[in-house]
Amino acid sequence: MNQHNATAILLLSCPDRVGLVSRISHFIFERQGNILDLDEHVDTESGMFFIRVSWDMDGFSISSGDLEEAFGPLAREFRADWKIHLSYEKPRVAIFVSKYEHCLQELLWRHGTGELAMDIPLIISNHRDLESLAAHYDIPFRMFSITPENKKEQELKERSLLEENRIDAIVLARYMQVLSQQFVDAYPNRIINIHHSFLPAFSGGNPYRQAFQRGVKIIGATSHYVTGELDEGPIIEQDIIRISHKDTLKNLMRKGRDLERLVLTRAVSSHIEHRVLVNGRKTIVFN
Amino acid sequence: MNQHNATAILLLSCPDRVGLVSRISHFIFERQGNILDLDEHVDTESGMFFIRVSWDMDGFSISSGDLEEAFGPLAREFRADWKIHLSYEKPRVAIFVSKYEHCLQELLWRHGTGELAMDIPLIISNHRDLESLAAHYDIPFRMFSITPENKKEQELKERSLLEENRIDAIVLARYMQVLSQQFVDAYPNRIINIHHSFLPAFSGGNPYRQAFQRGVKIIGATSHYVTGELDEGPIIEQDIIRISHKDTLKNLMRKGRDLERLVLTRAVSSHIEHRVLVNGRKTIVFN
Amino acid sequence: MNQHNATAILLLSCPDRVGLVSRISHFIFERQGNILDLDEHVDTESGMFFIRVSWDMDGFSISSGDLEEAFGPLAREFRADWKIHLSYEKPRVAIFVSKYEHCLQELLWRHGTGELAMDIPLIISNHRDLESLAAHYDIPFRMFSITPENKKEQELKERSLLEENRIDAIVLARYMQVLSQQFVDAYPNRIINIHHSFLPAFSGGNPYRQAFQRGVKIIGATSHYVTGELDEGPIIEQDIIRISHKDTLKNLMRKGRDLERLVLTRAVSSHIEHRVLVNGRKTIVFN
Amino acid sequence: MNQHNATAILLLSCPDRVGLVSRISHFIFERQGNILDLDEHVDTESGMFFIRVSWDMDGFSISSGDLEEAFGPLAREFRADWKIHLSYEKPRVAIFVSKYEHCLQELLWRHGTGELAMDIPLIISNHRDLESLAAHYDIPFRMFSITPENKKEQELKERSLLEENRIDAIVLARYMQVLSQQFVDAYPNRIINIHHSFLPAFSGGNPYRQAFQRGVKIIGATSHYVTGELDEGPIIEQDIIRISHKDTLKNLMRKGRDLERLVLTRAVSSHIEHRVLVNGRKTIVFN
Repeated sequence: MNQHNATAILLLSCPDRVGLVSRISHFIFERQGNILDLDEHVDTESGMFFIRVSWDMDGFSISSGDLEEAFGPLAREFRADWKIHLSYEKPRVAIFVSKYEHCLQELLWRHGTGELAMDIPLIISNHRDLESLAAHYDIPFRMFSITPENKKEQELKERSLLEENRIDAIVLARYMQVLSQQFVDAYPNRIINIHHSFLPAFSGGNPYRQAFQRGVKIIGATSHYVTGELDEGPIIEQDIIRISHKDTLKNLMRKGRDLERLVLTRAVSSHIEHRVLVNGRKTIVFN
Repeated sequence: MNQHNATAILLLSCPDRVGLVSRISHFIFERQGNILDLDEHVDTESGMFFIRVSWDMDGFSISSGDLEEAFGPLAREFRADWKIHLSYEKPRVAIFVSKYEHCLQELLWRHGTGELAMDIPLIISNHRDLESLAAHYDIPFRMFSITPENKKEQELKERSLLEENRIDAIVLARYMQVLSQQFVDAYPNRIINIHHSFLPAFSGGNPYRQAFQRGVKIIGATSHYVTGELDEGPIIEQDIIRISHKDTLKNLMRKGRDLERLVLTRAVSSHIEHRVLVNGRKTIVFN
Repeated sequence: MNQHNATAILLLSCPDRVGLVSRISHFIFERQGNILDLDEHVDTESGMFFIRVSWDMDGFSISSGDLEEAFGPLAREFRADWKIHLSYEKPRVAIFVSKYEHCLQELLWRHGTGELAMDIPLIISNHRDLESLAAHYDIPFRMFSITPENKKEQELKERSLLEENRIDAIVLARYMQVLSQQFVDAYPNRIINIHHSFLPAFSGGNPYRQAFQRGVKIIGATSHYVTGELDEGPIIEQDIIRISHKDTLKNLMRKGRDLERLVLTRAVSSHIEHRVLVNGRKTIVFN
Repeated sequence: MNQHNATAILLLSCPDRVGLVSRISHFIFERQGNILDLDEHVDTESGMFFIRVSWDMDGFSISSGDLEEAFGPLAREFRADWKIHLSYEKPRVAIFVSKYEHCLQELLWRHGTGELAMDIPLIISNHRDLESLAAHYDIPFRMFSITPENKKEQELKERSLLEENRIDAIVLARYMQVLSQQFVDAYPNRIINIHHSFLPAFSGGNPYRQAFQRGVKIIGATSHYVTGELDEGPIIEQDIIRISHKDTLKNLMRKGRDLERLVLTRAVSSHIEHRVLVNGRKTIVFN
């Protein structure tokens, strides 16, 4: 693999101690790496240190294939969770949908323009509605209808398919089924959902109706990693839009769709650019 | 009372029917009133009609003193809730505070610049902390310490004082006591609170801490009318500010203070300019 | 034409005088019309009155075909500019594009979902790039390449085509040619442009580059009616997004595209819903 | 000076090269400093590197008094512009005002609450209007009336006074005089102005009137360093607020005041916390 124009990105978290930035940046420097970007954060409550550092692999003294082995001893000394990503290895992302098209449309359009540097080998749905949209963008579409009776079995088939396709991350683009705990556990902090409210307000079903009935003056959308607890996973991105008494429930939904599209896109961008670290039930998003 | 330069403002709600706008505007027109501003809204769910209309009293054929009697028959025919306000009658507003000064400071400063067209005959507190701030702005400050034992009795004293001062509305500017049901019932849709979260998220105590622990990316503030149910009254105004993982709890509080000041001020402005109508647990705010 | 479920919308401006709201609403009331929505505005500087009022044609005592004749005398008395639109007559909108697809994609997608109640009989471009996108949405695409030499002649052909298609309004969705004065004069306040800056900042060419070089912390987009003066027409809608020193010029363009899409869509919505009135070089947009 | 609980903050810019982060962080690490926060940025257009790094002086092996000498050799090798600030040395800030009180009020109030970690030894004005506000906060107020004839002489007196008071930075809180080039040159990137528009739109006089007449849908405020070119200095912070056709010029000014207060406060915060680096006519603001 050619290292020219390649960038390496280290994401690491470990207990905080003196010298972490110095020693990590020294690891890069002594191998002739030029740091392109470095962001770090210390969570003083948990005493944890988080870093994202990217460097140019052009001229780096060791090959990308040997990177993990070379960095291993330092990481073990720091008792770190860590991963090194290479810019030419695009994340492989599966998108799950049901009937609403706006989020899928947005992701596929942006992917088509090159704005989202990921591969989309697979769209999975429990309905046929969006098959033609997938076809328009030439992406394989697989349907698994879900009932309470067949859910376990169908999820196993889906997971096989995900493994065959070496999927790194899953985006739930208004997928209207709750994934089982086993499914979620197989992709920790790698399943991204969009919830159509400003969480924790209006979790659960029909958030626009809830918002309409409560009479809020602002509605929101939230993108988060999926955990076993519904709508409780670490939040990656949120945004809002102002509404008024003139807005009907239908208007709320229409305005909300614009939010959902943008918020989900930003969360997916941050994830595939390796800008998100999870800290308990919170996230650190380096911009 | 001189009617030159006076403006009359009618706030009215009633069951919707054909001809309401026409007949109300005709009432004004046939008495030589020039409509300055008219906003109306129909809530199709409840079938209710809401209107705010203001007109110039200069040249109006009946005096402000006779206005209510003249409009009465129409209002009865419409089975309306209604009230006519006159611009030279400034609302008399009491402010309740505890220890935090930012909301009080903001209200008093804006009042001093003439931006808030209201009288503030009285500041009531359960602590002494803000007495000197009240003194600086020359506003009477009365302290009523509240304990579970004396609460009922103290509230009665407060209510006497409010009545003596002919108070029209009460602003809870970070007042850290819950008012009793009896107190609230005496001022329906006339007590304005500021809650330091984006309601309905993080109702109850310590909303900034709750937001910090949940890891939201945006915090908010909400101003609402007080009802018997804590943090559940009709929302008048909300706003938000973006935060990140870098923000400590202390930062959240600091950023939130700026929100609270602005949101409460806007809600108070809307109320004293007679721009708010209550529709069940929602509000209509005409801008 | 069946009047059931039809709505009439009157847009009117005239010199302000006493009784306008009363007499207009009475015109509707005495013909058994139920007012659905009424917004008015008086510009005290110019002394002009502006109104948008919509009513239910179901049960109205005169047919939609006779509406204009019936309202004529009142309008003449008021010396008004006015127009009555009927909800079942969808505006016919032509879209002009060049090479950038994002604005066209957004309009076509929203049109496809039914969110934009207009017909799009025609897409005109000076390049071939977006022909397949037009084809995907089954909309006729016509190419007129423009050079300094052929511009006059090509514009005449375009105008013939617009007339044949009975086009009511034109949307310039990042059309990279300046229309001639004659062309603009043929569609006064009916050509909507999107400019990729917060006007009046960065008018003219390369606004993102200008913004990048100036080091602003916020970028914007502006949708306005086209007049003879470049980027000087009445503004319909603007919005902004925050940027930082980390944003490259390419990032600015990417973030800006999201703005352009939303701002243009909102302006087109307001126009086709007959919510915009022009007041000199300013607009009144009733929400 | 006790180093316990002290923080050192290095601000540095230099031509980019391999190893800068590593060598700077190593300088801190080998002296037992614990890095609290590190932000860096490379401007690929100019080839310049910018860094802000803060560390705990508690346990640091050299005293704060010897810091600059110790770091000097590295800085010279990098051909860097740099400065080390110590958290216990609060910046000394003079505020210049004229007649508008809102920005001064905001700064003094926040200073009083401890939110702005700076000393304010001096308020300078060309009018008497705000003398009592300064007195209320116990800050010396000095009046220098300015005419075209006496301007040079008065500025010299002001500058003497600033030097006597060892002023680090100057905040123009709606100061309605243009400072001379000589004055500006004496405080490069240390004079912070608030302009009441979204620069570069509406530079010069009466920006609210300009905005009102142009019919923009959003107004803004901009805080920037003062240079010899009016309204052209590096922008530190901007923000905006939405307006509509209903807003009179007076309303614009009122809404704008809220913006000015917030934007100026944020810019001053960033400056006194040593978060701003100037890059030509742009700024880098580390949050």
